Amino acid sequence: MSEFQVLLIAGTHGNEVNASWLFDEWNKNPEIVNTPDIRLAKIIGNPLAKESCRRYLDRDLNRSFCRELWGNRDLHDYEIKRAKEIFGIYGPEGKNPCQIAFDFHSTTSSMGSSLVVYGRRPADLALASLIQFRLGLPIYLHEDNPHQTGFLVETWPCGIVIEIGPVPQGLLLERIITQTRITLETILEELVKIQARKAHFPKSLIIHRHIENIDFPRNEEGKPNSYVHKGLQTKNWVPIKFGHPLFESADGEIFTMDEHETLTPVFINEAAYIEKGIALGFTKREVWTFSKRWEEALNNLIFT
Amino acid sequence: MSEFQVLLIAGTHGNEVNASWLFDEWNKNPEIVNTPDIRLAKIIGNPLAKESCRRYLDRDLNRSFCRELWGNRDLHDYEIKRAKEIFGIYGPEGKNPCQIAFDFHSTTSSMGSSLVVYGRRPADLALASLIQFRLGLPIYLHEDNPHQTGFLVETWPCGIVIEIGPVPQGLLLERIITQTRITLETILEELVKIQARKAHFPKSLIIHRHIENIDFPRNEEGKPNSYVHKGLQTKNWVPIKFGHPLFESADGEIFTMDEHETLTPVFINEAAYIEKGIALGFTKREVWTFSKRWEEALNNLIFT
Repeated sequence: MSEFQVLLIAGTHGNEVNASWLFDEWNKNPEIVNTPDIRLAKIIGNPLAKESCRRYLDRDLNRSFCRELWGNRDLHDYEIKRAKEIFGIYGPEGKNPCQIAFDFHSTTSSMGSSLVVYGRRPADLALASLIQFRLGLPIYLHEDNPHQTGFLVETWPCGIVIEIGPVPQGLLLERIITQTRITLETILEELVKIQARKAHFPKSLIIHRHIENIDFPRNEEGKPNSYVHKGLQTKNWVPIKFGHPLFESADGEIFTMDEHETLTPVFINEAAYIEKGIALGFTKREVWTFSKRWEEALNNLIFT
Repeated sequence: MSEFQVLLIAGTHGNEVNASWLFDEWNKNPEIVNTPDIRLAKIIGNPLAKESCRRYLDRDLNRSFCRELWGNRDLHDYEIKRAKEIFGIYGPEGKNPCQIAFDFHSTTSSMGSSLVVYGRRPADLALASLIQFRLGLPIYLHEDNPHQTGFLVETWPCGIVIEIGPVPQGLLLERIITQTRITLETILEELVKIQARKAHFPKSLIIHRHIENIDFPRNEEGKPNSYVHKGLQTKNWVPIKFGHPLFESADGEIFTMDEHETLTPVFINEAAYIEKGIALGFTKREVWTFSKRWEEALNNLIFT
C-alpha cells in the first residue's frame, strides 16, 4: 500500500446527523460499511455543534477553511479554531496526512444523492467522473462565488462534498443513511481501483456549472416575504425557462424567472441557506469531454 | 360582542417557522387571512428563539407553563420568564385577558394537519369536535404523562394545539403555510358561530388517546443506535399490530412492536423529540359520544 490516505468527514454541520450517525456506528462495528483495503481517517467535523444539534456554534465550519481567517488573531470563533485543528492534523502536511477529503452532508432540499466540486481542479473532476460513472449522481460545480468561500474540501489537494436529501435537520432517516452508505462504499471501491491502477474512467462528465444564486424576495427587515412556489419545489436538476414561477407571497403575488436562458436550479428549499441569502442556485448543464490530464492529476496525488 | 377574546400563538418553538411567518404577514396585510368579527390577540411565543431559528434558548417554552417553575427563584431560564410574561398579559386574569388559546406548531413528522388536546377538559373537547367536524382532522388526546408537562394551552381555561407536518425545521413550505391558514380560518369561523349561538356540534368525536411513548433503542451513551424502520415512517394515524417493525439498527437488527394490543402511532420522526426520549407515541383510536356538557362548558367560557 502507498502512503496515500483518505479523509472522510461527517457532521461538518452538527445538525446533519445521518452521515455522522453512520460513522459512529461504523466505528463500533466495522462490518456495516464494506471497508476495502485502503488507509482511511474518519472524523466528525463539528462535534460540539453535533452535541447540541446545531449547524454550528459561532460560524459555519464549512466556510472557515481559509488561511486569512486562521491568521487573524482577533477572531475567536470555535469553528475557525476547529478548522485549523482539522487541517493541522489531516491536511496534506499534517501529522496524519490525507491527500483527498470526502465531506458528507445532508440537505433539506430534494437533491437526491449528489456531488459538489469546487472549481475545476483536474483531480476532483477525475474522481467525480468515476463516481458519476458508477452511480449516475449529478454534480454541482461550484465556482466564482466570492460570497461563499472557505469550504473544507477546497483546502485539500483533492476533495468532494456529498450532499444527500431531502431530510429535516436533526432527523435520522433510513433512506438518507442508506444513500450515504452506498455512496461511501462506491467511493471507497473506486479509490481501491485507482490504487490498483484499474480505474475505468468514462469518456465524458455531466456537470451542472454554477451560474448564480437567487435570494428570496425580502421585506424591509431582510426577512423572506415569499416562499418557494409549489411548482418549483421538486425541480432540482430540472431545467426551467423564462417565466417559470419561483416564489409566491402570502397575498398570492408570483415572482417568476426573469433570465432568458434555460437554467437548472439546485438546493431549492435548503433551510440553512436562508441566512446566507440563497433560495436556490442556478446552474447550466454541460457535458465535458473527459481529459487524460484529470486522470494524471489524480494519479500524481495518489502515487507520489 | 362579548368580552370574550382568543389568543393565537405561533412560534412557540422558534424553528417552527411557517405559522409565525403567516402571522407576521397577516399583521402587515390583514386580508391574507379571512378574519371574522371576533376579538383576537396574536403573538409570537418565543421571538428570541425565532430570531436564531432554534426551538428554544434555555428550555422548551412549551414545557414551561407551570406555576411550580414560575415560583422557583433559582431558575433563570429565558423561557420560564417568557411563559410567565405571556400568561401575565394574555392569561384569563391578565391585562389583555383571553379565555381560549390556539397554539400553532409544525412537525417534521408526517402528521398532516392535526389537533392535540391535553386531558379531557369539556370545553377543549367541544371545540375540537367542531374543528374535526369541519375539517376531519385527527385529534391526539395527550394525558397522564408526568414526564411531559407545562404545555401552554393547559394553562388557559381552554386551548388546543395545532400540529402540521411534515416540514423540516426552519423551512417555509407552501403546503404547510396553506394548511395552517385553512385550519386557522376554520377555527375562527367556528368561534364566530359559537358566539352567535349557531355552532353545529357533531354527534361523536374520534380521538386518539395517548397510551405511552416509545423511545429509540439507545447505546450506552444514551444516543439512538437505531432509526425508525422504513415500514413505520408513514404510519402516523394508522393502527399497527404486534410484530410490526419499529426500528432498525445499522447492522440490520429489527426491533418490532411487542404490545399485543393494536395501537396507533403518532409523531413518528419528530426530530425535536429525540432529546425528550420519544421516538413515537402510541395511541388508541376511540369514538366518543358528544356530550352536551362539553358544549355547556364552552358556552360558559364564552358568555360569562
